[in-house]
Amino acid sequence: MRIGVLTAGGDCPGLNAVIRSVVHRAVVDRKDEVIGFEDGFKGLLEGRYRPLDINAVSGILARGGTVLGSSRLERDRLREACDNAEQLRRELSLDALIPIGGEGTLTAARMLSDAGIPVVGVPKTIDNDISATDRTFGFDTAVGVATEAIDRLKTTAESHQRVMVVEVMGRHAGWIALESGMAGGAHGICIPERPFEIDKLCAMVEERFARGKKFAVICVAEGARPKPGSMVYRRGEIDQYGHERFTGIGNQLAVELEHRLGKEARPVILGHVQRGGTPTAYDRVLATRFGWHAVEAAHRGDFGHMTALRGTEIVMAPLASATSELKTVPEHRMEETEAVF
Amino acid sequence: MRIGVLTAGGDCPGLNAVIRSVVHRAVVDRKDEVIGFEDGFKGLLEGRYRPLDINAVSGILARGGTVLGSSRLERDRLREACDNAEQLRRELSLDALIPIGGEGTLTAARMLSDAGIPVVGVPKTIDNDISATDRTFGFDTAVGVATEAIDRLKTTAESHQRVMVVEVMGRHAGWIALESGMAGGAHGICIPERPFEIDKLCAMVEERFARGKKFAVICVAEGARPKPGSMVYRRGEIDQYGHERFTGIGNQLAVELEHRLGKEARPVILGHVQRGGTPTAYDRVLATRFGWHAVEAAHRGDFGHMTALRGTEIVMAPLASATSELKTVPEHRMEETEAVF
Amino acid sequence: MRIGVLTAGGDCPGLNAVIRSVVHRAVVDRKDEVIGFEDGFKGLLEGRYRPLDINAVSGILARGGTVLGSSRLERDRLREACDNAEQLRRELSLDALIPIGGEGTLTAARMLSDAGIPVVGVPKTIDNDISATDRTFGFDTAVGVATEAIDRLKTTAESHQRVMVVEVMGRHAGWIALESGMAGGAHGICIPERPFEIDKLCAMVEERFARGKKFAVICVAEGARPKPGSMVYRRGEIDQYGHERFTGIGNQLAVELEHRLGKEARPVILGHVQRGGTPTAYDRVLATRFGWHAVEAAHRGDFGHMTALRGTEIVMAPLASATSELKTVPEHRMEETEAVF
Amino acid sequence: MRIGVLTAGGDCPGLNAVIRSVVHRAVVDRKDEVIGFEDGFKGLLEGRYRPLDINAVSGILARGGTVLGSSRLERDRLREACDNAEQLRRELSLDALIPIGGEGTLTAARMLSDAGIPVVGVPKTIDNDISATDRTFGFDTAVGVATEAIDRLKTTAESHQRVMVVEVMGRHAGWIALESGMAGGAHGICIPERPFEIDKLCAMVEERFARGKKFAVICVAEGARPKPGSMVYRRGEIDQYGHERFTGIGNQLAVELEHRLGKEARPVILGHVQRGGTPTAYDRVLATRFGWHAVEAAHRGDFGHMTALRGTEIVMAPLASATSELKTVPEHRMEETEAVF
Repeated sequence: MRIGVLTAGGDCPGLNAVIRSVVHRAVVDRKDEVIGFEDGFKGLLEGRYRPLDINAVSGILARGGTVLGSSRLERDRLREACDNAEQLRRELSLDALIPIGGEGTLTAARMLSDAGIPVVGVPKTIDNDISATDRTFGFDTAVGVATEAIDRLKTTAESHQRVMVVEVMGRHAGWIALESGMAGGAHGICIPERPFEIDKLCAMVEERFARGKKFAVICVAEGARPKPGSMVYRRGEIDQYGHERFTGIGNQLAVELEHRLGKEARPVILGHVQRGGTPTAYDRVLATRFGWHAVEAAHRGDFGHMTALRGTEIVMAPLASATSELKTVPEHRMEETEAVF
Repeated sequence: MRIGVLTAGGDCPGLNAVIRSVVHRAVVDRKDEVIGFEDGFKGLLEGRYRPLDINAVSGILARGGTVLGSSRLERDRLREACDNAEQLRRELSLDALIPIGGEGTLTAARMLSDAGIPVVGVPKTIDNDISATDRTFGFDTAVGVATEAIDRLKTTAESHQRVMVVEVMGRHAGWIALESGMAGGAHGICIPERPFEIDKLCAMVEERFARGKKFAVICVAEGARPKPGSMVYRRGEIDQYGHERFTGIGNQLAVELEHRLGKEARPVILGHVQRGGTPTAYDRVLATRFGWHAVEAAHRGDFGHMTALRGTEIVMAPLASATSELKTVPEHRMEETEAVF
Repeated sequence: MRIGVLTAGGDCPGLNAVIRSVVHRAVVDRKDEVIGFEDGFKGLLEGRYRPLDINAVSGILARGGTVLGSSRLERDRLREACDNAEQLRRELSLDALIPIGGEGTLTAARMLSDAGIPVVGVPKTIDNDISATDRTFGFDTAVGVATEAIDRLKTTAESHQRVMVVEVMGRHAGWIALESGMAGGAHGICIPERPFEIDKLCAMVEERFARGKKFAVICVAEGARPKPGSMVYRRGEIDQYGHERFTGIGNQLAVELEHRLGKEARPVILGHVQRGGTPTAYDRVLATRFGWHAVEAAHRGDFGHMTALRGTEIVMAPLASATSELKTVPEHRMEETEAVF
Repeated sequence: MRIGVLTAGGDCPGLNAVIRSVVHRAVVDRKDEVIGFEDGFKGLLEGRYRPLDINAVSGILARGGTVLGSSRLERDRLREACDNAEQLRRELSLDALIPIGGEGTLTAARMLSDAGIPVVGVPKTIDNDISATDRTFGFDTAVGVATEAIDRLKTTAESHQRVMVVEVMGRHAGWIALESGMAGGAHGICIPERPFEIDKLCAMVEERFARGKKFAVICVAEGARPKPGSMVYRRGEIDQYGHERFTGIGNQLAVELEHRLGKEARPVILGHVQRGGTPTAYDRVLATRFGWHAVEAAHRGDFGHMTALRGTEIVMAPLASATSELKTVPEHRMEETEAVF
């Protein structure tokens, strides 16, 4: 077979592990040919690719980012490509295409699949918010980075009797905040799924100080929002460059808490460190298994599907199921900790 | 309610996280009373325990080991206790007992349960070999430590054109070897479930050297064994202290490879570092959820069961199911990598 | 002897290691009595202290923050205390006082010393900017945290062809930026000691993109400033709470680069994670040695001095020398890397 | 200039950082030509080398091992080469040679230097035992790895009331054992410089158990030896392969302690993980500075010397001084901790 692979969307620890695994399984075991498209779908549309043999993936297992590069999707160009899908497939002599990406990528993958390209998807999102799979790779690494930050912030908060507000990733789903908050023992966790109540947050901090625990750490997802009216919350104005100023719930919340509580509150915005760098062992294993199973699915002709983790096993899920609904934190998970506000 | 908690068997990162979670859920949320038995079942039998309030578990979430201590099980004493279970329960005024432990502990838990003690078990094994649950806490930490070691050994192996043999934990099940081997990109993985063939291992190393990759890392579970006759393998003699000499498949395999291949081979026995120290975020979350659900089960009167992970959810499994069969690495998991020999 | 110890100023990994070492040397080896003042000089002035024996310092070696607490210095109260120093010393029966802190603390220590209190100082600053000592503990940990962040950001920058701007600590001295920038291989380093030229920074990034290295990481100390007029740089306006908005050179620089280069630039502000958490081995050893030597100095009657690292040895330096001049990055250190702009 | 660089002897984290730094300084800043000899002096003698430009060293800063490979020195061949040094230099058109290595390498470097080759050495040893420099790169990484292991072992030792014996590197000098022992808070430290007394070690452990601290961690350098007659210590017999059995002071000491104390004692032999993998920030900075200064020395014609750290500065030391005397742990350093036996 001749298999194409590409990575699209935001980067995520484990992308290289998938690429390596696809090559190992396809080239070494199955005697396939593998080509890697550069910069995501762009490379596919522009015919920019390079052959991937075992040497091309040597030493990349533990490396963050993607050796193939990535880029934003241009939907118009993609639609055009779908209209000429058969031609594209023939020109590239593709027997299978393995796009690795998030919701946008998998939607595009579905379009290509519907247009006749033999596609096997591999889901990727640091946010863990794809419905069809128990977990996605990259998430464990992000949670690990955020947890280590919370660990560190606790000691400095305690020494100075401060409130620390840690803003982690998660625009629409609070998984990173929930799990790193639980793992780090954050005293408050704010997630997009449940508008938080600033009064209750303040009461919790004051109760802690009252019983001698004179510090608190609050872990807030970037997409968390207060209950309307519960907080003097304003999105920042727009500056001369069109950038929003003082953006970010982390900064806002720290200001609000400081003024309400009369105690020092400091924000820490973790940002891009959560998505870079070497993946955890968990993510490397999951990514490696996804790659292996994607090749096997291609050989079985199991197209229009994507790899997914269910319990301990890798199964194939319809591409459609991946993109139908965002997997957000359900109520019963919030109840497993007293810290979600 | 008055809830007793104890930790038994070998220690494992995450034990303290369970204890803390039990206390948080029971004492803070549910207004229960929690007592912690010291040194495992010993403390239960001898009535040695201390009350656990929120201060007693402050700061232990990220700490390895167990603040309650642990000890080996003495079966005879335990049987005796079962004969007087009702009396024991009344003396201690126990409404629920939460023993945290591995196969031995859960077997004991089942005996106590059968004898009338209201038991909710929490499974614990660094080896991940308990059937009823997808994963156990401690395992992810062990795999992480082993993976970091493999990462480090690869660069030194490469610089010196050596074969490195890393022995990891796993007497009966090869999970740690499999997952850390996959995560670290070990070139060979040997596990108890499949007697390995030394000839094939040697052939793999020679093939690598032949194509210019002049090093190899082999990850071997302590319980892995060669195919009978395939290796000059002898368990060590017994020395004057009754210790077995030169024990360990890691050491044996390194000697064997060095002599067969005529290349330097070096063993590294990771040992106890795999089970000590701060748990990963994954293990802290799993342990915390187990603790929370154990308390809830106690309140529901759901005794004779233990917490278990199924997919993304925590469910209750019969204690019997935990101890019926060891969860070993199945064939289809071995096939997901070319590295298992 | 009866020795008092206190920690003052911003927290710093290694403070607990000093406290533990003082207790080990004084109480265990020298049979001294040690008392720990709470919340820095505040505890001294208010007579709030607790005895520190070997159990009080058990398990704190690797813990960040300070078990004694810290607080800002109130100069007026301190001056008053100096006027009654002899009385204070007699009331507390102090034979020696070991204050651990930065420039402000050591200045206060000198005042107390001049007023007759037998003081042995231990220097502490995460910024490494105290003249009299080669290095201070806490600095290595901060550099390590910042370096790991740069490592992580490089892979994500590369995957997305971005410029990442990492802001690290250092208001007056650029040591953290210099060493983490060198260790992480940052392509640009901006420090307070040398106003940076935005034109040259941009030229460097463009040269990189031109030769196919389509990303860059720039490490900027919080106190770095551009050459006057070289950048559209404005300190933020003041918001309703008196907070400066959009503060921080990291954010400003990212905006500036994005607009000048027409490429995506993203800021990451590391903040408090640099000063929290477990100290590196280097910092633990240095802190432990400082504590040991402080006790020895007290026994020798070597007051009015502080511990200092010179080469491989711990020596005593006059308290005056610690506070006379800030140790900034000298020209010849900037020349050791092409990355300082 | 045309500069040759090579790495020889055991590998060490930071070697790649030196190579990269030499190339950055020489090729980018100084417009020199740099060639890298493969597999140490072997490559020099056999004329096996490759040009090193900026792309050749891209991404290696944080990687362990050496991209140039290393090998044992063959003294006879080297002596022969010295006899024809001028010819060799002319054939290779070398204006300067920068060998990076330990005592053996620097001795060889001195021979070549005496024979007329323009040599600038860079010292390397994980053991930190080269006299002329305050510290060597690689050492900090080794100490960090060993310290993390001790941290982990403490919790497992405590949970099981065990004695853990950690064997670290250091055949002739105890620096790694001393500093990781101090950083990890080991209760006993045994180093080659002072034959240890098993009676005192046992007394210390028993004193700990007596006062309720029912565990101990002992950090022993591989070259540590007991006082003659103080321990039932026997070097292992020789097995059929010529390997020494049951070698290692770590294993011996654990057996001895277990039998003397009647408590469980477990050995952990850290081995090669101490020398592999990504270097710490400290080691990366030191290695980078060494590389930079080596190039500068070559341009100044400062041959026959090697780079060295003195305090905070890099200076040049005569090659002779590097190899004259091993830098062992002096008495006054042992006294800084009560843990050295």
